[in-house]
Amino acid sequence: MSMAACRLLKQRRALGCARSLSILLRNPPVSRSITILSEFREEKDTFGPIKVPANKYWGAQTQRSLQNFEIGGTRERMPEQIVRAFGILKKSAAKVNASYGLDPNVANAIMEAAQEVADGKLNDHFPLVVWQTGSGTQSNMNANEVIANRAAELLGKKVGEKAVHPNDHVNMSQSSNDTFPTVMHIAAAIEINTRLIPKLEGLHSALAAKAEEFKDIVKIGRTHLQDAVPLTLGQEFSGYVTQVKYGIERVKGSLPRLYQLAQGGTAVGTGLNTKKGFDVKVAEAVAQETGLPFVTAENKFEALAAHDAIVEVSGALNTIAVSLNKIANDIRFLGSGPRCGLGELLLPENEPGSSIMPGKVNPTQCEALTMVCAQVIGNHVAITMGGANGHFDLNVFKPLIANGILQSLRLLGDAADSFTKNCVVGIEPNRRRISQIVRESLMLVTALNPKIGYDKAALVAKTAHKEGTTLKEAALKLGVLTESEFDNYVVPEKMLGPS
Amino acid sequence: MSMAACRLLKQRRALGCARSLSILLRNPPVSRSITILSEFREEKDTFGPIKVPANKYWGAQTQRSLQNFEIGGTRERMPEQIVRAFGILKKSAAKVNASYGLDPNVANAIMEAAQEVADGKLNDHFPLVVWQTGSGTQSNMNANEVIANRAAELLGKKVGEKAVHPNDHVNMSQSSNDTFPTVMHIAAAIEINTRLIPKLEGLHSALAAKAEEFKDIVKIGRTHLQDAVPLTLGQEFSGYVTQVKYGIERVKGSLPRLYQLAQGGTAVGTGLNTKKGFDVKVAEAVAQETGLPFVTAENKFEALAAHDAIVEVSGALNTIAVSLNKIANDIRFLGSGPRCGLGELLLPENEPGSSIMPGKVNPTQCEALTMVCAQVIGNHVAITMGGANGHFDLNVFKPLIANGILQSLRLLGDAADSFTKNCVVGIEPNRRRISQIVRESLMLVTALNPKIGYDKAALVAKTAHKEGTTLKEAALKLGVLTESEFDNYVVPEKMLGPS
Amino acid sequence: MSMAACRLLKQRRALGCARSLSILLRNPPVSRSITILSEFREEKDTFGPIKVPANKYWGAQTQRSLQNFEIGGTRERMPEQIVRAFGILKKSAAKVNASYGLDPNVANAIMEAAQEVADGKLNDHFPLVVWQTGSGTQSNMNANEVIANRAAELLGKKVGEKAVHPNDHVNMSQSSNDTFPTVMHIAAAIEINTRLIPKLEGLHSALAAKAEEFKDIVKIGRTHLQDAVPLTLGQEFSGYVTQVKYGIERVKGSLPRLYQLAQGGTAVGTGLNTKKGFDVKVAEAVAQETGLPFVTAENKFEALAAHDAIVEVSGALNTIAVSLNKIANDIRFLGSGPRCGLGELLLPENEPGSSIMPGKVNPTQCEALTMVCAQVIGNHVAITMGGANGHFDLNVFKPLIANGILQSLRLLGDAADSFTKNCVVGIEPNRRRISQIVRESLMLVTALNPKIGYDKAALVAKTAHKEGTTLKEAALKLGVLTESEFDNYVVPEKMLGPS
Amino acid sequence: MSMAACRLLKQRRALGCARSLSILLRNPPVSRSITILSEFREEKDTFGPIKVPANKYWGAQTQRSLQNFEIGGTRERMPEQIVRAFGILKKSAAKVNASYGLDPNVANAIMEAAQEVADGKLNDHFPLVVWQTGSGTQSNMNANEVIANRAAELLGKKVGEKAVHPNDHVNMSQSSNDTFPTVMHIAAAIEINTRLIPKLEGLHSALAAKAEEFKDIVKIGRTHLQDAVPLTLGQEFSGYVTQVKYGIERVKGSLPRLYQLAQGGTAVGTGLNTKKGFDVKVAEAVAQETGLPFVTAENKFEALAAHDAIVEVSGALNTIAVSLNKIANDIRFLGSGPRCGLGELLLPENEPGSSIMPGKVNPTQCEALTMVCAQVIGNHVAITMGGANGHFDLNVFKPLIANGILQSLRLLGDAADSFTKNCVVGIEPNRRRISQIVRESLMLVTALNPKIGYDKAALVAKTAHKEGTTLKEAALKLGVLTESEFDNYVVPEKMLGPS
Repeated sequence: MSMAACRLLKQRRALGCARSLSILLRNPPVSRSITILSEFREEKDTFGPIKVPANKYWGAQTQRSLQNFEIGGTRERMPEQIVRAFGILKKSAAKVNASYGLDPNVANAIMEAAQEVADGKLNDHFPLVVWQTGSGTQSNMNANEVIANRAAELLGKKVGEKAVHPNDHVNMSQSSNDTFPTVMHIAAAIEINTRLIPKLEGLHSALAAKAEEFKDIVKIGRTHLQDAVPLTLGQEFSGYVTQVKYGIERVKGSLPRLYQLAQGGTAVGTGLNTKKGFDVKVAEAVAQETGLPFVTAENKFEALAAHDAIVEVSGALNTIAVSLNKIANDIRFLGSGPRCGLGELLLPENEPGSSIMPGKVNPTQCEALTMVCAQVIGNHVAITMGGANGHFDLNVFKPLIANGILQSLRLLGDAADSFTKNCVVGIEPNRRRISQIVRESLMLVTALNPKIGYDKAALVAKTAHKEGTTLKEAALKLGVLTESEFDNYVVPEKMLGPS
Repeated sequence: MSMAACRLLKQRRALGCARSLSILLRNPPVSRSITILSEFREEKDTFGPIKVPANKYWGAQTQRSLQNFEIGGTRERMPEQIVRAFGILKKSAAKVNASYGLDPNVANAIMEAAQEVADGKLNDHFPLVVWQTGSGTQSNMNANEVIANRAAELLGKKVGEKAVHPNDHVNMSQSSNDTFPTVMHIAAAIEINTRLIPKLEGLHSALAAKAEEFKDIVKIGRTHLQDAVPLTLGQEFSGYVTQVKYGIERVKGSLPRLYQLAQGGTAVGTGLNTKKGFDVKVAEAVAQETGLPFVTAENKFEALAAHDAIVEVSGALNTIAVSLNKIANDIRFLGSGPRCGLGELLLPENEPGSSIMPGKVNPTQCEALTMVCAQVIGNHVAITMGGANGHFDLNVFKPLIANGILQSLRLLGDAADSFTKNCVVGIEPNRRRISQIVRESLMLVTALNPKIGYDKAALVAKTAHKEGTTLKEAALKLGVLTESEFDNYVVPEKMLGPS
Repeated sequence: MSMAACRLLKQRRALGCARSLSILLRNPPVSRSITILSEFREEKDTFGPIKVPANKYWGAQTQRSLQNFEIGGTRERMPEQIVRAFGILKKSAAKVNASYGLDPNVANAIMEAAQEVADGKLNDHFPLVVWQTGSGTQSNMNANEVIANRAAELLGKKVGEKAVHPNDHVNMSQSSNDTFPTVMHIAAAIEINTRLIPKLEGLHSALAAKAEEFKDIVKIGRTHLQDAVPLTLGQEFSGYVTQVKYGIERVKGSLPRLYQLAQGGTAVGTGLNTKKGFDVKVAEAVAQETGLPFVTAENKFEALAAHDAIVEVSGALNTIAVSLNKIANDIRFLGSGPRCGLGELLLPENEPGSSIMPGKVNPTQCEALTMVCAQVIGNHVAITMGGANGHFDLNVFKPLIANGILQSLRLLGDAADSFTKNCVVGIEPNRRRISQIVRESLMLVTALNPKIGYDKAALVAKTAHKEGTTLKEAALKLGVLTESEFDNYVVPEKMLGPS
Repeated sequence: MSMAACRLLKQRRALGCARSLSILLRNPPVSRSITILSEFREEKDTFGPIKVPANKYWGAQTQRSLQNFEIGGTRERMPEQIVRAFGILKKSAAKVNASYGLDPNVANAIMEAAQEVADGKLNDHFPLVVWQTGSGTQSNMNANEVIANRAAELLGKKVGEKAVHPNDHVNMSQSSNDTFPTVMHIAAAIEINTRLIPKLEGLHSALAAKAEEFKDIVKIGRTHLQDAVPLTLGQEFSGYVTQVKYGIERVKGSLPRLYQLAQGGTAVGTGLNTKKGFDVKVAEAVAQETGLPFVTAENKFEALAAHDAIVEVSGALNTIAVSLNKIANDIRFLGSGPRCGLGELLLPENEPGSSIMPGKVNPTQCEALTMVCAQVIGNHVAITMGGANGHFDLNVFKPLIANGILQSLRLLGDAADSFTKNCVVGIEPNRRRISQIVRESLMLVTALNPKIGYDKAALVAKTAHKEGTTLKEAALKLGVLTESEFDNYVVPEKMLGPS
């Protein structure tokens, strides 16, 4: 890119030049035709002509958004999952439109170009940020423009001349108002099925294996952080196993409504400018492309004007974050030490822990996971705000909601996986320590309740505590039972279940 | 206050008597007439003797909590639903304990006393606030003490002498750690089944009736708050109907995990000091008492250490709040005016709206409902915080979580009902206004897309907007189609669905 | 109350009858004239006549609200602080109105009646719930009606005949739209000055005393929950002291905007129907009544249409909740045990801790405080939602916001006080335990960094950890320094500050 | 990069290869020596040797983190502002260390390398994600390693051989535990001073100019969304002006605590391994570098263990988000139409608004801004969660908190700027429409309150409403005043202030 061109571009937006370059090189160009980086071509929309980078497929409306929404920089681009879901959707729509009379050549070219989008090959041509129009119209037009230009190119036509028209052909029978909610559902459902659930299942298995492995290790229970009656380490872990199991159920429980697609509602939900049956057929085509059981939404007005289905999914993620926060917190506390903490667990040592304290190792996986949980909980509030404030026939917090749910899904999935691989599977019990402290606990006195009553048992515990003796010493001193009775009743191993 | 007066009062309602006393003692008496209040009896626990009001059934531990947690005053008492759920649970436990050998006389007296608690007859004897120990132990002991003393009285024994023992008899085979989560689930499940769902169903019916009633009223659609293509008022309301319908599904979807009871886990989940089968039998007894399908929790460790099930319910309520906020917002905006707003709906006039502007009437039901939604969303964050921060074998944010979910359930149910009765059923369309503005909308031009293409259609709309003319005038001026073509294509009534 | 009357009332609203009764008995009537409980009188407003309980001062608009907003029951009544602030405001307004020409007899009667409201003597006459119109108009009218009727009575006129008119006299030069924001500010500012700040100062002093008391107790530091380098217990507490100190600064920093009163803006901020100077004079009168530096808001449009000042206060409370949560969490963890926890602190034993585990004592004050923190954080979100969603010239989430901020203020203040008195002042260090574990810590090796470098120091720590030896043994074995060097360098007492 | 090398790298982590490449090309290499992309060198830490990309300055600990925390991909990297603040800090520390005896050659090389980091020239060498250890140790070590290697290179030494040691030299007298909180404060303070405040000031000016411009345009007021008494459009905008003005005050009010730097506290706040005065001197050096009034924190224990200062800043941003949400919402509603909405404002048309409705223009800047507000509110909850859950001597939610506050600051600043430039400055009043509807409003009747009383005025308004007439017609019909009286009293222009 010539310095002149670069300077020109820079006048429009700061990051442009460096970004274009880096994008170009990150994913090698799919088309030979884009070679003269330094030039611009003119694109047109209903607002008139505008210059766009010659080596990009995007058109006028994308370019306007790029210039009108300089918010957050490249870090804040529309998530790749949305871009790729647009590929899936536009391909599906072209297929159905062909069956309703769209020129098969045009339809096929659109499908081929859309597949490239679905494959992530054209990511560099989607420069828009999340913080744009609240309907996501600009990203829908970005998809329409890129696919139209790429399809035209595939047909041997010139980019920018609308041989394939972004609105009339690529967006045929569609509106941003139904496509954007549709790609939100597609992207989230894919992320749930290919990332979150598998990763949570991995965590579930790893915890279940530990629960089994630790099933005979008797340890002190802790309630209110204070010594309580004993249980096994396996029982303690079985609680975590159940939390994760239910977490998976919870997110699965939200899927029936997520699998409903808004497509076919067009601008306000009526389906104006579509043909009868278009909605059902598109949902079928998307289901075929993705292998997921998408169906057309039973009420398109709800599907455009509200995003309750995503708020619901986010609620499930919020619950999962609550569960994982609890589990990670417990594990790091149980692994605290090595000499001045609880020290019941030995966590894997993955890296040096301190820039100043040599030899320190920290529960870093627990920390990354609990930070992720906090972000998921925060995103849930953002999504809730966005979901609550739609007006009339369209919710215009769509990109916020899409971005939030996709970040939450990705972070939870990745962090669960990292936690599983780099922490859970390597957890070892510190048997010596566990065994030592369970025997010291005064709360073993609870086993005496049914024998001598709560009030006397309390007296034994308090006496031992006050005088720093063992329970047995206190019990004998108080004369509430004999040594052999005591030895018979107060056995941690017998305190692990109903009698 | 005489015992007779007190009893009389008690028959009517909970809070009076106990509250008077505590208030009395905290704030010096306002009236001479309350003088015989001043008698106390002594109760004892493992900390020693303590004076309690002679006319109250509670014992030493309740009294200690009352003195140690002066936080928030009577407004912040443990919700009545929790108190009454304790009645249900203690009755059920006594019944099962009888089958395991508890003296039938004692068991029967406990069951009778517990029934009085379940009936709300002893509400005045539950003075503790939410902001106490995080396990709810003090409220569990409050229930144990009140039932023990009342049961003793029923057996002709003296109150305070522990003929029926709060721990050994009433709390037999139980721990606060399993009873409190159990009553949380019982109380929430009852509230959902007897208040929230019926009220949401009422709202659903009322909205569905309106959707049907309005099904032929063609109106302007609005996206981004801007004029869009038409739809019927019935279609718009059908979106609300669907939101409420799914809201009911969402909360029902959370019930399977809410119906799981922790009872039988005792102190840490192991079930120490219970008999085999106790957990299953208690759940059956509670199911019988309530008519709801409660079962014993499949994992008691999870059930004590986490409250994911309630966080999940709260997530469902959060989604419902999002839905209702959207609906109430739309309705008040559509009803805005009477002369300077959108004015499409006429909302019932229930009361004067302004202390300074005579004749003003406001959408007050919408306001109450949206305020409730905001509180439910806030409570969800509080519950999430509480749920995320349990440690080891016991979550100690139980009263916070219980209070939050019960407030959210009650407010949502009541507000949905009030909104239904005082607003939705009385909504009338302003047919004249609706009809007038839909015909003025420039977005009817959308019907021309398939005929003349997006770009030309845009030109027509822009010309009309710029020149302040009708679409038809602009179209004819631009020569893009004939008058008869225009009249044939641009018909709001034909724009309500796919072709 | 006759059963017939009661039945009548019940038809209107569920709780009516019992509630009236209990309220009556709780606070004895201030006026002799209210004796025949069983009767109703007729009141009128612009909607026509309506029956109200004869023994209540409220009028038609209050009664309508009572019937139209059956949401949440008595537990959800408008906070008493708002009611009493209305007393202060209405008295001040009458005083100023007198100076502008209001009949002095009427003005004086209003002032006397308003003073009774300010004193809490007429609380029973304010039955409305929070979940009403979002402007609080109904509570403003409740105040107007009660004061008008009571003032009329004081003037020897009949209640209900409007000798003193609720709108024309009591509400003179006012609108709900400026009175309600005004009482929100008055109530919150009083609560901050009389409860929150004094209680936080008490906590600050108690913590500072402990920091001083513990200043020579060397203990292990913990980062990532893992053993770190030593510090003194006093240093650790000094962090808490600073957090509370800054918390007080934070809430004080929000006061300048809270001291601004909306009064004088009337319906939309213009001050229509007031006299010039009314706003300034009312603010002065309120300042005089309360002893707090209230001033008139510099922009009344902002003061009615937004509640940023309260959102800001809530943000300060949110930060304080964050601080107190950290402090309470630390203290309960440091006090965990007695035998299987960290055990460095001995917390006061205030009550039995378990219904099943005899002798158990728990950190219940920490639990109550952390639950309060969670609620404050949740309320902050509710208040934020309410603050963000005002429209045009009036925010209509006022009662929600008022209720939330007042609950947060009360709970934080009370819980800080309870925590101070029942926990902090009684904390004792477990010197033996503290001393024992600090000597075992491997992180004392950090003292060797400047002597032998980070890498060698790490090797010493890792060797000791792996082989279960002391640092000194490892250091000598590795030959990195001599025994006397080691003894000279590795001294916890020398590791407490810069060199 | 050879395919073999690439494959090797891919085995370690998915994105590695493409990312390295793109990073390399985006910012041209600063050093000639990094040319052989395809090779790795060995780096070592206390865990042993590990391979790192030969063309990167980072070392072993960075590489370990890269491999151990595959969470979120490149999108989730530590914010650039943190990286650059590390440059500022490390330079300052080296300068001060030199004054305490660090070899001046080493110190100078560190300062030069650190300056490159501060200038953003070495951004590509900071590959770590936010979701790592909660202390940010790994990013601190990333800075130490990059600066050490670059400094060694500047001294003519070989990269990787620790001629300049990351811990002993670059991190001298420091710990991650004090550096990370320090860079959090530096980065946030810079962002506030260079982005947020200037952009808010720009918005303030633009709104103030509009308030002035619109000061004589009389329009209808709206409360509860319903017609109310008139005000000027300038008065309405003056409310927004005040909100933004106070927003600036709020964030400035939080700066005193943000300007406090933790540096000098080292591992737990004691300052172990620093020299006396180090803390003060570093803060001075940072102040000099940045031109901002940083000082050393008065209590280092608080500064490491809590992030209340950032939670407080976030609370200010939350309030600003509340304000901007209100403003943007109002503006889009007032601009709604063009024919079926309120239509009082004409917003700039920046781009086509719909992919299906030709000619549609939407309030997209308002939408971007309100979405940003929702995210800021959500981030505030995440930051609050993180801030509340620190333990003992170190809060380990640091990267989450840093990332959240920096995203919130950037988005708010950018969106405020975009909103100002692309919306506010171009707002025009629709004078015809404004004038027309204000005259139709029934609420002009309020002007009659002082003349004929509230009840009669209400009757006039209700009659006009019911009969669809003007107020004057109704007034005359009811005979409450003469025509000339009416004309004299009911004049919108006279209703704009006190009399």
